[in-house]
Amino acid sequence: MPMKQAPINQETPYLLLDINKLDANIARMKAHLAPLNVTLRPHVKTNKSAQVADRFFNTADRPITVSTLHEADFFAQHGFTDILYGVAIAPNKFEHVRKLISEGIDLKLILDNVQTAQLLLDFSSLHHLPIKVLLEIDSDGHRSGLPPCDAEIEQIVGLLQGSLVTICGVMTHAGNSYNSRSLSEIEQYANQERDAVVSSAEMLRSLGVNVTIVSVGSTPTALFCKDLTGVTEVRAGVFAFFDLVMAGLGVCKPDDIALSVVTMVIGHQKEKGWVIVDAGWMALSRDRGTANQKVDQGYGIVCDINGRPIGDLIVSAANQEHGIISSRSGKHVDGLPVGTQLRILPNHACSTAAQYSGYYLLNLDESADTYWPRINGWQ
Amino acid sequence: MPMKQAPINQETPYLLLDINKLDANIARMKAHLAPLNVTLRPHVKTNKSAQVADRFFNTADRPITVSTLHEADFFAQHGFTDILYGVAIAPNKFEHVRKLISEGIDLKLILDNVQTAQLLLDFSSLHHLPIKVLLEIDSDGHRSGLPPCDAEIEQIVGLLQGSLVTICGVMTHAGNSYNSRSLSEIEQYANQERDAVVSSAEMLRSLGVNVTIVSVGSTPTALFCKDLTGVTEVRAGVFAFFDLVMAGLGVCKPDDIALSVVTMVIGHQKEKGWVIVDAGWMALSRDRGTANQKVDQGYGIVCDINGRPIGDLIVSAANQEHGIISSRSGKHVDGLPVGTQLRILPNHACSTAAQYSGYYLLNLDESADTYWPRINGWQ
Repeated sequence: MPMKQAPINQETPYLLLDINKLDANIARMKAHLAPLNVTLRPHVKTNKSAQVADRFFNTADRPITVSTLHEADFFAQHGFTDILYGVAIAPNKFEHVRKLISEGIDLKLILDNVQTAQLLLDFSSLHHLPIKVLLEIDSDGHRSGLPPCDAEIEQIVGLLQGSLVTICGVMTHAGNSYNSRSLSEIEQYANQERDAVVSSAEMLRSLGVNVTIVSVGSTPTALFCKDLTGVTEVRAGVFAFFDLVMAGLGVCKPDDIALSVVTMVIGHQKEKGWVIVDAGWMALSRDRGTANQKVDQGYGIVCDINGRPIGDLIVSAANQEHGIISSRSGKHVDGLPVGTQLRILPNHACSTAAQYSGYYLLNLDESADTYWPRINGWQ
Repeated sequence: MPMKQAPINQETPYLLLDINKLDANIARMKAHLAPLNVTLRPHVKTNKSAQVADRFFNTADRPITVSTLHEADFFAQHGFTDILYGVAIAPNKFEHVRKLISEGIDLKLILDNVQTAQLLLDFSSLHHLPIKVLLEIDSDGHRSGLPPCDAEIEQIVGLLQGSLVTICGVMTHAGNSYNSRSLSEIEQYANQERDAVVSSAEMLRSLGVNVTIVSVGSTPTALFCKDLTGVTEVRAGVFAFFDLVMAGLGVCKPDDIALSVVTMVIGHQKEKGWVIVDAGWMALSRDRGTANQKVDQGYGIVCDINGRPIGDLIVSAANQEHGIISSRSGKHVDGLPVGTQLRILPNHACSTAAQYSGYYLLNLDESADTYWPRINGWQ
């Protein structure tokens, strides 16, 4: 029986995924990217689920991006063979890389410095192991990557020339787009992201490198880019679920959010107008990503069990297993007796989902599945 | 072979638990409580590990506190039979409670309102199931519980009188002690915590209730209380590991912290003086519990692989799988090449540990174990 409503007897808290919304969010991204002539290589770090990842594709090619090699193992076991590991490789992961490549996975690594290139070259030579890499470019100064067209790029190309370590192209992630104050600012980040990799790809070509991958991606830039000339693929992940941070950016509406935490009222503090629920920060995550946005959503927007927001209620505070619900405007909350089921829309889908081992499903018509497992952690 | 050093080839990030420090922290708590004539009922929500919980006890009685019924199942399977579930019970967990009691677990539930008492009474009557409860008292206004000696206590006693739902006593948690600014303030919270339950226990006795449990506990109050007259047991959890929030309160020293995240350097931003590591907020948790303390520790203090802090380095920012290390005083960081292993002391042991499925162990002499699993989640 496809589940049309959250089950009343299921112990709370649990994670509920609305398949109709998931599919609509994926369709929106695909429709946006289609005329831009790029491949979608979804980041599975948000969902960490083979069944969710399956819904991105109706083609034989199923390129994905992973955030851990543990994810790479899991998705490889589920038939995904074209995998980009989106965190700069480090020496204690080389043996794991060797295992994945030996199993036939078309794995792409990333790196951003000569030192790592040398270590990887040594490993590759020792084991006669062909390894594909992309150079990571820093398009907005928010974390790792080489500056576009940096001189170190030439050093790396020189070092790896003629070796079993093949440079396939470049990648970047415009993480600062999450701090945008307007959609036009997001579009500027998208252009900056594109220009950083396209110029670096040109530099690589001028050095004789056969560039086949020019990769960009963040959910905001992927949805608001207008011209991706020179880019071959887009990585983005959170768009499939969306969350309150994305809604705060104007990238989606709260009603588009496919993920929620189902919780139950366990008590009240009547004098204070508080409702106490069994979803604390362990269930919602400690992520306060909306704290610096125009509207601070606390630990999440409170909805009824059918997903409709209730007044101006938010989870205003959280302990490990206790959430405190209150009205943003200070009104007392009535009509939510002990035992009432509620749904909380999360600030950040990646961090909230990571607190769970899987998803309960809403509106899944074509199968009898009621639960999709996730692959968390690193070991 | 007992592991005396973190293994160089283990893929990072992973969670490392120093058994010497764990044992010392437990011994400290026991030594403090011994003259106060109370039982220690450790909260296992921090460790969620049967092997860690075993180290609290060298007696046949092994009372514990759990934060989820999933923990209750797990610890019951590992021979723990005296279990207090420290979150107010809700109707969709009644069947789970029935299962645990039917399996012979001496389970204590908590509640703080007439409505829940009525629902539990109905369930107990329907299934002829004896259920033990404690009344939750609010000693500091931070979340749930009835005010001490509140009139609703009398209503609940009246309702449950002669039923299969037995009131065994009262409990409270001085969560606000985490916001203390001095050790004397912590001691005040400890006295307030004690007075709230002792007075409520007296009220219960005056109503004819046979009170056998008068339960208090938070790590700060448990370690700095001086007089627990009238209290029978103390619940506390984080003291076994400690963390930077506790160190910031003055409850422990950073060197007492038994838990750390092992990470590896994956790159640098030389212009900015940043070191990039493979422990981001997924590995460290989003918990920023030191943000409002005197010293903001960012996402954690950076140590070498032997646990010694390196200068004034902290994880100053984090993405999902990237941590950015920088000097608090703005100095450039030298001498940490790609491949260097580091250890990060966590802000909050409960939330950081929850990101992992288990612990790698340091200084465990008496067995060949190298990994202790955790029980995360709710299902």
